[in-house]
Amino acid sequence: MSKGRLEAFSDAVIAIAITIMVLELKVPHGADWEVVRPLVPVFLTYVLSFVFLGIYWNSHHHMLHAADRINGKILWANLHLLFWLSLIPFVTGWMGENLASLPTAMYGGVLLLAALAYLILQTAIVAHQGTDSKLRAAVRKDVKGKLSAVLYVVAIPLAFVNQWIAIGLYVFVALMWLIPDRRIESKVGR
Amino acid sequence: MSKGRLEAFSDAVIAIAITIMVLELKVPHGADWEVVRPLVPVFLTYVLSFVFLGIYWNSHHHMLHAADRINGKILWANLHLLFWLSLIPFVTGWMGENLASLPTAMYGGVLLLAALAYLILQTAIVAHQGTDSKLRAAVRKDVKGKLSAVLYVVAIPLAFVNQWIAIGLYVFVALMWLIPDRRIESKVGR
Amino acid sequence: MSKGRLEAFSDAVIAIAITIMVLELKVPHGADWEVVRPLVPVFLTYVLSFVFLGIYWNSHHHMLHAADRINGKILWANLHLLFWLSLIPFVTGWMGENLASLPTAMYGGVLLLAALAYLILQTAIVAHQGTDSKLRAAVRKDVKGKLSAVLYVVAIPLAFVNQWIAIGLYVFVALMWLIPDRRIESKVGR
Amino acid sequence: MSKGRLEAFSDAVIAIAITIMVLELKVPHGADWEVVRPLVPVFLTYVLSFVFLGIYWNSHHHMLHAADRINGKILWANLHLLFWLSLIPFVTGWMGENLASLPTAMYGGVLLLAALAYLILQTAIVAHQGTDSKLRAAVRKDVKGKLSAVLYVVAIPLAFVNQWIAIGLYVFVALMWLIPDRRIESKVGR
Repeated sequence: MSKGRLEAFSDAVIAIAITIMVLELKVPHGADWEVVRPLVPVFLTYVLSFVFLGIYWNSHHHMLHAADRINGKILWANLHLLFWLSLIPFVTGWMGENLASLPTAMYGGVLLLAALAYLILQTAIVAHQGTDSKLRAAVRKDVKGKLSAVLYVVAIPLAFVNQWIAIGLYVFVALMWLIPDRRIESKVGR
Repeated sequence: MSKGRLEAFSDAVIAIAITIMVLELKVPHGADWEVVRPLVPVFLTYVLSFVFLGIYWNSHHHMLHAADRINGKILWANLHLLFWLSLIPFVTGWMGENLASLPTAMYGGVLLLAALAYLILQTAIVAHQGTDSKLRAAVRKDVKGKLSAVLYVVAIPLAFVNQWIAIGLYVFVALMWLIPDRRIESKVGR
Repeated sequence: MSKGRLEAFSDAVIAIAITIMVLELKVPHGADWEVVRPLVPVFLTYVLSFVFLGIYWNSHHHMLHAADRINGKILWANLHLLFWLSLIPFVTGWMGENLASLPTAMYGGVLLLAALAYLILQTAIVAHQGTDSKLRAAVRKDVKGKLSAVLYVVAIPLAFVNQWIAIGLYVFVALMWLIPDRRIESKVGR
Repeated sequence: MSKGRLEAFSDAVIAIAITIMVLELKVPHGADWEVVRPLVPVFLTYVLSFVFLGIYWNSHHHMLHAADRINGKILWANLHLLFWLSLIPFVTGWMGENLASLPTAMYGGVLLLAALAYLILQTAIVAHQGTDSKLRAAVRKDVKGKLSAVLYVVAIPLAFVNQWIAIGLYVFVALMWLIPDRRIESKVGR
């Protein structure tokens, strides 16, 4: 299994997931502001999910860039990650239409399982590289990956107390990935 | 016809099929556990189909990796395989919504025709390579490919006796491909 | 504009069109043979459109393989072809659901406009290559391309006499492309 | 982050957006001319959006072709552009179904935000290249990019006076990009 085809397939699945999400933003019947209002939460959830899928695409690329070799375990760990990412359009549509406790918790559940799938994939790749691989060093410092998972675990039960706390935590995780990445990169001039 | 473009096109079709399946998982109206219950069988069928498409993508890649040359016959045999794979989202949605005899038999029918299309493609590729190709040797030992087809033939009529027997056989085929592949690979260190 | 990216974009659009067509094959409510019957014409139209898109993908590849240089005119002629191909899922769904005169004529209309777009693209590519290009020689012999367009022109008004005559002509065109291609190739061993 | 994967991902998202738009062209129930009439504005909007996405794909390619290096800022500026492009199927469906003031203004709004996202991406790429890059020179002359944004700003409020003025301006922008590009290229023989 060549790395190139694994990357291309992952790119395609993420690109499709990120684009078909817009189909959950149903074209309203009518043309006044009243029909727009119920679309606002769907739209904002769409923005959040777009950012999450963008982060995954970005991180996925950096991780595979550092990998030299691919085996069957890595391939299935990758498909496992793509599985949870492919569910994001569904939970996006559901949370966006309701903004209620259960869909919000489910949204967090899919994010959590995607984050765990990512950690599993990371472990599978590191195990298959040499002991002094640069990926191993990078993973040891992957505080954000683990913190994200912890925040999802906290957010899911809190969604049943108040869904806005959970949504706030999801937004916080997204910003955590979005902002520092750019700052660090501009510093080290990567 | 270059092998690269055949692989890229096949990857794209499989990636789209695997991702648009989620559109059959309709966003429910309502936000309580009651609306989730009817989605459970649809979700589990989605998992099964995701695994099957993942297996096909994986096997397809290994097979084409071993092929040196492509001709028109291989190209159409490949499109024939993609045709049956493109129907998987449809039968997934139908079986998942009903879990009844006819949709379960139809699901098996599409799996059977995909399996036969795969064997036809394999034969077309082997016929076009040299007589001592490594693919020819690999195919002779392709017990799993033929056993899968036999199990589908058995499962389809049994779906009309009890759909759960057929579903059990489909799950068995999926596990047969999923588990040993990883075990063998970690042994031979491929 | 590199040829590679033009091919990749065309492949992606054709792969998506060929795969999302299955979404017009609506998952029926119910699980007996009665709900299957109205799906049969939709399914058969799906098969026909799948073959047409497969033929276009195949021919497109051969044509671009023979092209050395790309310019803006070729790029827009290619997008023009992709435009008509992107409408195939729509007319497939409409003809398949009704099998009536107007949708059948419209189906032929889209096929005709796609065929003309293909001829325009061919002309644009030939004009941009050297005078002794191998493509120029191949195009002069492109009887099938021109005959297909003529047959569509004949079929469209005949759809209003009897839609089955038109459908018969579409099937004839598809077979004309499907069968000899394979015969010629196996002879010349391409 | 390699440029190749950024291009491939962008191509995939644009190809998917351009192709799933056809799903907003709902297959009508019935088979006479009466059901076709309401589809005409949806179809024409589809044509317009297809042209806009084609222009973006074309321009995007030329811009990235001139870029030597990619960083995190460019990557997120690119995802930001893809975000607005991914909304085009939604506003296409809405404007096409209604041809009323609000959807027409929203359509212009998405075009405006895509145009601004494109300018931001251009700036990020130029800032990351050397001071004497050929892209910097090309951007200084990018009158069309800025004029397009200005025309959208003018069109959006005018949509509430009369939607046809706004639609006329959108068509004008599309033609402005479509026609001269080809004339210039045939002159300089690019």
